[in-house]
Amino acid sequence: MRRIAVLCGGVGAARLLAGLVQVVDPASVAAIVNVADDDEFHGLHVSPDIDTVLYTLGGVVEESQGWGRRDETFHAQAELARFGEETWFRVGDRDLAAHIHRTRLLRAGMSLTDVVDGMRRALGIRARILPATDAAQRTMVRTAEGWIAFQEYFVRRRTADAVREIRFEPEAAPTAAVRAAIAEADVIVIAPSNPFVSIGPILALAGMRDAIRSARAKVVAVSPIVGGAAIKGPAGAMLAALGHEVSALGVARVYADLAATFVLDEQDRALVRDVETLGVRAVATATIMRDDASRAALAQAALDAASR
Amino acid sequence: MRRIAVLCGGVGAARLLAGLVQVVDPASVAAIVNVADDDEFHGLHVSPDIDTVLYTLGGVVEESQGWGRRDETFHAQAELARFGEETWFRVGDRDLAAHIHRTRLLRAGMSLTDVVDGMRRALGIRARILPATDAAQRTMVRTAEGWIAFQEYFVRRRTADAVREIRFEPEAAPTAAVRAAIAEADVIVIAPSNPFVSIGPILALAGMRDAIRSARAKVVAVSPIVGGAAIKGPAGAMLAALGHEVSALGVARVYADLAATFVLDEQDRALVRDVETLGVRAVATATIMRDDASRAALAQAALDAASR
Repeated sequence: MRRIAVLCGGVGAARLLAGLVQVVDPASVAAIVNVADDDEFHGLHVSPDIDTVLYTLGGVVEESQGWGRRDETFHAQAELARFGEETWFRVGDRDLAAHIHRTRLLRAGMSLTDVVDGMRRALGIRARILPATDAAQRTMVRTAEGWIAFQEYFVRRRTADAVREIRFEPEAAPTAAVRAAIAEADVIVIAPSNPFVSIGPILALAGMRDAIRSARAKVVAVSPIVGGAAIKGPAGAMLAALGHEVSALGVARVYADLAATFVLDEQDRALVRDVETLGVRAVATATIMRDDASRAALAQAALDAASR
Repeated sequence: MRRIAVLCGGVGAARLLAGLVQVVDPASVAAIVNVADDDEFHGLHVSPDIDTVLYTLGGVVEESQGWGRRDETFHAQAELARFGEETWFRVGDRDLAAHIHRTRLLRAGMSLTDVVDGMRRALGIRARILPATDAAQRTMVRTAEGWIAFQEYFVRRRTADAVREIRFEPEAAPTAAVRAAIAEADVIVIAPSNPFVSIGPILALAGMRDAIRSARAKVVAVSPIVGGAAIKGPAGAMLAALGHEVSALGVARVYADLAATFVLDEQDRALVRDVETLGVRAVATATIMRDDASRAALAQAALDAASR
């Protein structure tokens, strides 16, 4: 069985994973998921990227937005507001169950890795879902107003601030399960997620870059930038603000020291030659994941590109 | 302003309070509420009697059952079950907000008294709602199978076990706010709640019986037993199991050392003379609280009886 490790942020990664489990044995897939977006709301531990992956692979995600639960209601949130709780981070009633359950187990001393493993089994998911770290690694973003927590930037301020600098604190290490998944992988896929605040925190974990570079796996990255803009989220604005070109080429430069192969959208086919001057093989294909078929096709294309 | 302190359990007490605030200035009322039924579910602090009083006075209670939120949904609970959480204690989505909010503030170091005061203000309630204690006083019930926690007996086992003994642990003290409410009261009402597991824990608090006996207030108790059975809950079975007569007279004997006046239902009028042989003035009136009018009438009758 060919083993596949996928470095994951939220929506884009979850959709690629949903494609991957259609084209390979789901048990061969290890999703290594960013947790530096995790935060506490109403005293509950919220893991946005983990839950997006869980809900998507569990078939309960709200497809129209790519995250959160389908058929969601917000009755608890309305009452939390009445009690004066801050509610800029919206939490639905079904979603709340994940946060309550996770928080209870974490407080009881269970690792996030073990908590998430129980949750993915409860949702009938066969692919492994591995938090990148069990430590409290958190993304901080520097804006004109100083350093703020990621969710403050991302949700409360709706990514309106120009990002001047990003850091992850405190320094954290990948879990043993993540190190093993990297070492055992035949293919490592860098999902089409934000290179700075989704993939960045995973790569910033102690020893992670070296582990990927020294792994026997072929590494393929999929561009989250199509036609000069991000499919979703602030990746485009961040590339620009941090001095990178807002294009698939800009992303390829960020990953050039790790990925042997780079998948970009067919509408960026003109950039193939520029990417290849970085010493990276470039493959243009359809990368927009509208439905199950396009997700499966992109997953297959990425695996094929990696193995070529 | 005549000050009124009410010793309270759940549904019966909440309904009497709803009557009381119709006939006196709500700001003159201090509800002293049992917290020995409190427990933790899903890692959240649940205060059943406090919430029944909050929801009833806040006008959001499910009237058909007397507790819980009106128009409640159970979406979070269904997902908690999917994650393997025990769900014999049902928690609705709207109700969950109270538990989440309370738990967050308690973990941050706030007293239950201050948490509940914020919640009653948020619900627009002018009467003060005072947890009997801020300590973790808990009711334990001894059955044929040994000592079990109150909610285990009450909810999970549906009061099916014969109760052989009741204890409250650890020993706890009333709050300063409760001691002041007792000392300042002109009338102390013992609500028609379970004498053993609702009023009992309040009276078991350190110094509480002496504080009531030495208070200048007139003390009036309202019988929760009508026509030889409890209006609601296991009070009848408990009276029998603990060797008491299952009647208003049996209840009057329990309170005879504290209450100068005892209000019983008009259908128990034949017991008035027996109650009075205990040295307690007995008043028969309509005690079944079907609607706002009957609640107000009972509250007024209790105040009148106390002052006569």
